[in-house]
Amino acid sequence: MSLRIAEIFGPTVQGEGALIGEPTVFIRAGGCDYRCSWCDSLHAVDTIYRHDWAKMSADDVWDRVRTLSGGQPLTVSLSGGNPAIQDFAPVIMRGKSEGYRFACETQGSIARPWFADLDTLVLSPKPPSSGETVDWQAFAECRDVASHGPKVVMKIVVFDDADYTWAKAAATRFPDLPLYLQPGNPDVDPDHPVDLQACADRLLWLVERVMDDKWFMPRILPQLHVLIWGNKRGV
Amino acid sequence: MSLRIAEIFGPTVQGEGALIGEPTVFIRAGGCDYRCSWCDSLHAVDTIYRHDWAKMSADDVWDRVRTLSGGQPLTVSLSGGNPAIQDFAPVIMRGKSEGYRFACETQGSIARPWFADLDTLVLSPKPPSSGETVDWQAFAECRDVASHGPKVVMKIVVFDDADYTWAKAAATRFPDLPLYLQPGNPDVDPDHPVDLQACADRLLWLVERVMDDKWFMPRILPQLHVLIWGNKRGV
Repeated sequence: MSLRIAEIFGPTVQGEGALIGEPTVFIRAGGCDYRCSWCDSLHAVDTIYRHDWAKMSADDVWDRVRTLSGGQPLTVSLSGGNPAIQDFAPVIMRGKSEGYRFACETQGSIARPWFADLDTLVLSPKPPSSGETVDWQAFAECRDVASHGPKVVMKIVVFDDADYTWAKAAATRFPDLPLYLQPGNPDVDPDHPVDLQACADRLLWLVERVMDDKWFMPRILPQLHVLIWGNKRGV
Repeated sequence: MSLRIAEIFGPTVQGEGALIGEPTVFIRAGGCDYRCSWCDSLHAVDTIYRHDWAKMSADDVWDRVRTLSGGQPLTVSLSGGNPAIQDFAPVIMRGKSEGYRFACETQGSIARPWFADLDTLVLSPKPPSSGETVDWQAFAECRDVASHGPKVVMKIVVFDDADYTWAKAAATRFPDLPLYLQPGNPDVDPDHPVDLQACADRLLWLVERVMDDKWFMPRILPQLHVLIWGNKRGV
């Protein structure tokens, strides 16, 4: 059975969340069950791009990761789109046998048995600004599948006050999941240079919002790759 | 016995290293056994400022932290200067009894029994660009004191190729310590605005340097507080 792959790239650093700064090769799966208003990876989501997605066997995917990393084990991040649509168990099995570590980023809408084989599972429920609605039962299933293996964390993108209030409620639902907040990036055009001051200002806004509330649970992080490369792809 | 304190501030986010993005109150100790060429905290290091350092009891220090944090437990970071010059055991003891967590940032030149009571010990050996020379035996003692309690990590600031080569050798000495690399910030004047593009460029330089080497051990992180606030103090 083949996998639909939008891109495989790296090694680069993980730009977000729990593994921020960690050397990583990314496997970006094609296809998504969501269509967030501010999606920064439409080339892996919108089906008008589906003919650009490679059909690859698990072995082909793994060979590409190994070539990019020079055979040196590192963290491999499964992202998308929603990688949970597809079966990455064979890729994870091959990689782990060679000493690689695996992370997966997903909205938490579809639980997969292979979540249990990961090192890190990042569940990113989408706040109101996305235009999507979270199925919290499916989200809890994702957490439960991974309850005995990987580190499971929650990451929430915050664009505005409504998202922020929603993030606090989400944290109350899942008090045991380490929480990462990230200011939203409204400018996702890869051909448009990023305004670094605006990025810094959004981070300041979110830090002050959280600190003013004396809410000390979440860690607050920017997107490093946006600071370094703007919205360029494949880095 | 009183403590010499340069400043106590927060809550803000930890800008660097293993706890990047974590809500934190900082206790910046006055006094240092080093004098790094590029020190960004001379107001806590250079003895010309010593009359600005408050003499505070451990109880006074703790009362200030509790007031700033509204009595809500969070991470307290002991920094400096070199906090290991002084005895922070009573502060840590009071804080832990109230549910607070403690991190300490030190160059690793002086080992202290209270390192064992921390949650996180960040050892930052200073590279050649600092003008200082590391005593690796003292450094190893710091690690050993903390070997049964806190998470111990190594953080190295990298300004240039010589620092980079040195960081690789340091990592070889201590392969079991999780490693964080951080590009150096040559512009530490609090009255001078920070050039965000230059910060981003230095991060890119370091990421590419490490990735080109296929060296996947370190995590590579910027200084968030510099991105957000420049070199302003007390944030």
